[in-house]
Amino acid sequence: MHFASDNTSPVPPQILDALVRVNHGYAMPYGNDALMAEVRDTIRHVFEAPGAAVYLVATGTAANVLALSCLCPPWATIFCHRNAHIEEDECGAPEFYTGGAKLTLIDGENARMTPGGLDAAIAFTGRGGVHNVQRGAVSITNATEKGDVYSADDVAALCAVARAYDLPVHMDGARFANALVSSGATPAEMTWKAGVDVLSFGGTKNGLMGVEAVIIFDPEKAWEFELRRKRGGHLFSKHRYLSAQMAAYLEDDLWLKLAARANDAAARLSRGIESLPGARLLNPTRANMVFAAWPRSGHRHATEAGAAYYFWPMDQTLDGPADDPLSARLVCSWSTTDAEVDGFLDLLRG
Amino acid sequence: MHFASDNTSPVPPQILDALVRVNHGYAMPYGNDALMAEVRDTIRHVFEAPGAAVYLVATGTAANVLALSCLCPPWATIFCHRNAHIEEDECGAPEFYTGGAKLTLIDGENARMTPGGLDAAIAFTGRGGVHNVQRGAVSITNATEKGDVYSADDVAALCAVARAYDLPVHMDGARFANALVSSGATPAEMTWKAGVDVLSFGGTKNGLMGVEAVIIFDPEKAWEFELRRKRGGHLFSKHRYLSAQMAAYLEDDLWLKLAARANDAAARLSRGIESLPGARLLNPTRANMVFAAWPRSGHRHATEAGAAYYFWPMDQTLDGPADDPLSARLVCSWSTTDAEVDGFLDLLRG
Amino acid sequence: MHFASDNTSPVPPQILDALVRVNHGYAMPYGNDALMAEVRDTIRHVFEAPGAAVYLVATGTAANVLALSCLCPPWATIFCHRNAHIEEDECGAPEFYTGGAKLTLIDGENARMTPGGLDAAIAFTGRGGVHNVQRGAVSITNATEKGDVYSADDVAALCAVARAYDLPVHMDGARFANALVSSGATPAEMTWKAGVDVLSFGGTKNGLMGVEAVIIFDPEKAWEFELRRKRGGHLFSKHRYLSAQMAAYLEDDLWLKLAARANDAAARLSRGIESLPGARLLNPTRANMVFAAWPRSGHRHATEAGAAYYFWPMDQTLDGPADDPLSARLVCSWSTTDAEVDGFLDLLRG
Amino acid sequence: MHFASDNTSPVPPQILDALVRVNHGYAMPYGNDALMAEVRDTIRHVFEAPGAAVYLVATGTAANVLALSCLCPPWATIFCHRNAHIEEDECGAPEFYTGGAKLTLIDGENARMTPGGLDAAIAFTGRGGVHNVQRGAVSITNATEKGDVYSADDVAALCAVARAYDLPVHMDGARFANALVSSGATPAEMTWKAGVDVLSFGGTKNGLMGVEAVIIFDPEKAWEFELRRKRGGHLFSKHRYLSAQMAAYLEDDLWLKLAARANDAAARLSRGIESLPGARLLNPTRANMVFAAWPRSGHRHATEAGAAYYFWPMDQTLDGPADDPLSARLVCSWSTTDAEVDGFLDLLRG
Repeated sequence: MHFASDNTSPVPPQILDALVRVNHGYAMPYGNDALMAEVRDTIRHVFEAPGAAVYLVATGTAANVLALSCLCPPWATIFCHRNAHIEEDECGAPEFYTGGAKLTLIDGENARMTPGGLDAAIAFTGRGGVHNVQRGAVSITNATEKGDVYSADDVAALCAVARAYDLPVHMDGARFANALVSSGATPAEMTWKAGVDVLSFGGTKNGLMGVEAVIIFDPEKAWEFELRRKRGGHLFSKHRYLSAQMAAYLEDDLWLKLAARANDAAARLSRGIESLPGARLLNPTRANMVFAAWPRSGHRHATEAGAAYYFWPMDQTLDGPADDPLSARLVCSWSTTDAEVDGFLDLLRG
Repeated sequence: MHFASDNTSPVPPQILDALVRVNHGYAMPYGNDALMAEVRDTIRHVFEAPGAAVYLVATGTAANVLALSCLCPPWATIFCHRNAHIEEDECGAPEFYTGGAKLTLIDGENARMTPGGLDAAIAFTGRGGVHNVQRGAVSITNATEKGDVYSADDVAALCAVARAYDLPVHMDGARFANALVSSGATPAEMTWKAGVDVLSFGGTKNGLMGVEAVIIFDPEKAWEFELRRKRGGHLFSKHRYLSAQMAAYLEDDLWLKLAARANDAAARLSRGIESLPGARLLNPTRANMVFAAWPRSGHRHATEAGAAYYFWPMDQTLDGPADDPLSARLVCSWSTTDAEVDGFLDLLRG
Repeated sequence: MHFASDNTSPVPPQILDALVRVNHGYAMPYGNDALMAEVRDTIRHVFEAPGAAVYLVATGTAANVLALSCLCPPWATIFCHRNAHIEEDECGAPEFYTGGAKLTLIDGENARMTPGGLDAAIAFTGRGGVHNVQRGAVSITNATEKGDVYSADDVAALCAVARAYDLPVHMDGARFANALVSSGATPAEMTWKAGVDVLSFGGTKNGLMGVEAVIIFDPEKAWEFELRRKRGGHLFSKHRYLSAQMAAYLEDDLWLKLAARANDAAARLSRGIESLPGARLLNPTRANMVFAAWPRSGHRHATEAGAAYYFWPMDQTLDGPADDPLSARLVCSWSTTDAEVDGFLDLLRG
Repeated sequence: MHFASDNTSPVPPQILDALVRVNHGYAMPYGNDALMAEVRDTIRHVFEAPGAAVYLVATGTAANVLALSCLCPPWATIFCHRNAHIEEDECGAPEFYTGGAKLTLIDGENARMTPGGLDAAIAFTGRGGVHNVQRGAVSITNATEKGDVYSADDVAALCAVARAYDLPVHMDGARFANALVSSGATPAEMTWKAGVDVLSFGGTKNGLMGVEAVIIFDPEKAWEFELRRKRGGHLFSKHRYLSAQMAAYLEDDLWLKLAARANDAAARLSRGIESLPGARLLNPTRANMVFAAWPRSGHRHATEAGAAYYFWPMDQTLDGPADDPLSARLVCSWSTTDAEVDGFLDLLRG
């Protein structure tokens, strides 16, 4: 029973099989392998974007910050939610890769930005001419860090604000598949049709060992991206092992199936928690993460039994009355089984 | 017949097996997996360095520049050979990661620095107080980019120069195993006993998919390294897949066996070329790379038959008289077979 | 009648005289001139800090960011007020000079941080280990951007919070003299005795052409500062012209006299405004800046007569009912005369 | 008798007078003062460049590196002579401001690049695609660091090489006036007509306290320059004091007259040395610097009498036979008198 994060899961057998299949003979290095051409074509097809530039890197942070450094100059700021991964979980990687750009933090329920909140932040930033950092780029995380999902229309509304200020838009899609499955949008609707310029297309949290694609819908920045990737130490010589994973991920919509399983597990978990006495969801469960509070007694049973998950915020403790609720984050992945969910719910019930 | 680079090879079956074995259940992310503890212990044992800090990253560039950025401040310079990978093949990654340090280039046969050449370069750098960049660090590549190997004594002599100026020493060991096998030194003799502070311990060119260890013999810089790794986007969430590869690489001295096979193939190739009419080695073959010149007729036969390798320098062409020699680089890997070598030699003989 | 900023004023005659006096013969460049030795000694004496390192630069931004880059590593954050000059008026210079550090913004009345607010921000930053930016340094602006003044005790209380987390403290003293005169503290009490590590000791806003001192109380960082100053392009070859200004500024407490005149003018202005019908101060006038609101009719008279000052916030307009108050910032300098103040007040009265 | 550097001289009376004249009343800050508009117009007129963007900064390093950072991206390299100020005397400022670009060093007599040398260096840099740093910009120093002067045709020949690779050209004109007077070219011929994109137009070495202009002939980069200047801490609030100096410098061709006096002094010194027994010039004296060798006996007399200058290279000593020549650098400035020159020559003669 492990709900700590979707990055603690193994990879599905199709991924290992793909590595075995590709592990023979010589292959051109640095993304010039035959499989990468296939990956590029498939992604262009899936996103209905025949001109998109497509690159692979191994970590979500690399995908995000390489993308953002192509969009935002050093003297500008990136508008994002206060809980965005680029703000909270990357140890200043955006600042490093951009050469010192800022992040301007926007509040909003469930780690969502609203068009109004975004507009106010951008407008305020433009007040001082050369004395202030400039308006740089907008970064939207979908699914959000609180497990919420922007619909394609929500994304379009944020992009419209960005466009009004002539700002490019990045989407952190570490959980893009989860958002897509949840919203029912097509990949194109959720991205370039809504106004997204560059997508970090997540693979790692959804079943790969460590592979993310960066999809640049307007390929004018492609060469700059390649140089930044190399210079960041993120260009793989034995690239075939990234390509193979991504190819398998895309084959037969495996990526969407994996995300659907994670989302379904979270929904099941969510329904179960809602039915517990004294428990409640802190926000709607729309992707693969559940934020909920339930009595400490349930937490005690679960942690004693070895269930792994985080109190949220993390600095809470089990101390307190048995029926006093304590909030937590529970993350499901493609590998979470119904049995795990049900076993965990049994523990909570005591 | 592929001698273009050691990064075009597949991985040996032990590495794939290790991935299969580790691919079950949940594992702590970010290097907190159980296998990483094992890797750390093994490396400390192999290097006779119980206090060393050990980290994994996925590319050689990442290993080199994260290490160097811990050793050299932004206003200083790194002394290295003119042909060093950090100078010629990393698109300015050292400058990026250090925040703008320089590289001071030192000439020398077979991509080797001499103690005298190193000393002169360091001495010259110190001439101008605050007006010049300062002396920062020394980086030694072993095996060198020309396939030569520094003995442990050679390394110690370079480190002695560095020490005289109180400078730390980095070793780029992308082909460390090849150098070790060639020289007969122990890992400890070749590194910290000789005066090396940080080693980029290569795995990728010697049979892994994309895993390098950074070994910091004086762990005072360990936490800084961890922050720089994260901030560089080089900390893997599903770290177990790096750990598993490195563990298998170290098990039963696999890493040394792989390097021995590559070196042996290069030696066989080297002997064969020497025996060709009109051919000669450009420098001694000490590791897994052969630099040689032979008549264009041989080159024509080889390239027509699809043999892959680089003319060296790269801007040469096949045009010219049949017996006019043309120089080339041939790289062997763990996967190069005797049959491949012999088949290639047959082609050269026409 | 010019209350737009203290940086629109001329310099007092003593400063010009000092330039004339020093303008003969040859002088050693780069801070090795004889006058700089005198400046250093005087500052050490004035601050009761015989071991302090003292450097001159030409802009307040340079002073602040060179100082901060010595205190805060690239992967950390600087805790400061949301209205701090380093956040609002330096176009990302701190991010540039630190190599990508963040600023963590703390709210508080009158551009003051409270110890509680500072403590909460620092505590929150430490929550995530390697995944978050680290705690770096604290920067206190005195006088604040809203014209308020921290007492020496106030500064000590903030420094105590910083010390509890082992963080160094920078003081942005662009208006240090104004704060000192207002508070009655000694230079030592306001700085190192309270726990400040490095002071940007302002000269430009208080009567110099463009000279600031950086005073590093613990000189361990002195050499690093010198290298960063040079590398930032802030080391002056003809340094004597900076030294001469600073020497004259310190002579016979000129710097305190100039600040006293500016503060007195602001007090006079402040009292005058308070006595106007429909007018009120927005916060107490403690240094040389007045933040006040008064009826639009008064604003109309003043602006028609050519008085220069900023509405605050700047995006307000004169449109609206005559007796509807509109808020403004009025800055006095050493050169503001009583006649100017009284003339301005006459205008407001209509 | 002071020949150590042109930055140890005082400023001519016109400059002090200009400061006195401008020191009254209020003036708009940050380059919005009335005098700056005048300076801009004058420079555009003098350079026959009505569309040029013109900015002032206080140091030559700031001028050079702000300019270069607008021309060269972080992943590229700047081609310059091995003795260029940006390589030897700026402590890595170009690397800092560009965000980690390299400098590629080109050898050549008298600190001059040749078109062939430049072409070879650029061609070599383009060999490796994404793996190498890219071709960035060319920087030409005129007058050179060895006192030589490129003619307008020489500059055009270098620029033609740059253009063939589509690279922008920067000119470090710390001694631009000396070069112009020596060559007889017009400002336009020496710069944009020859192909120079941005000029660091020196004032400090030629009689100002610390003022340099950056002239951007194609103003597309103007806004970026303004942001970089602010972010570098090089935008002056009390900008009028820079404007006033530059205005006086330009008035009645003062700048050319000052340079002519410095060049004439160097010519006189040069002729005198040539006539000494056992002495010789190391290269032709074309601007305000003399590189010469003469017997140690003469050096002993001069240094005993307190004459200030540098042995060149600096690490030589007076030890040795009396008639053994020792080489030195002698720099004249606008303030060097014939009496000083003759007095110095008398000393050398013993």
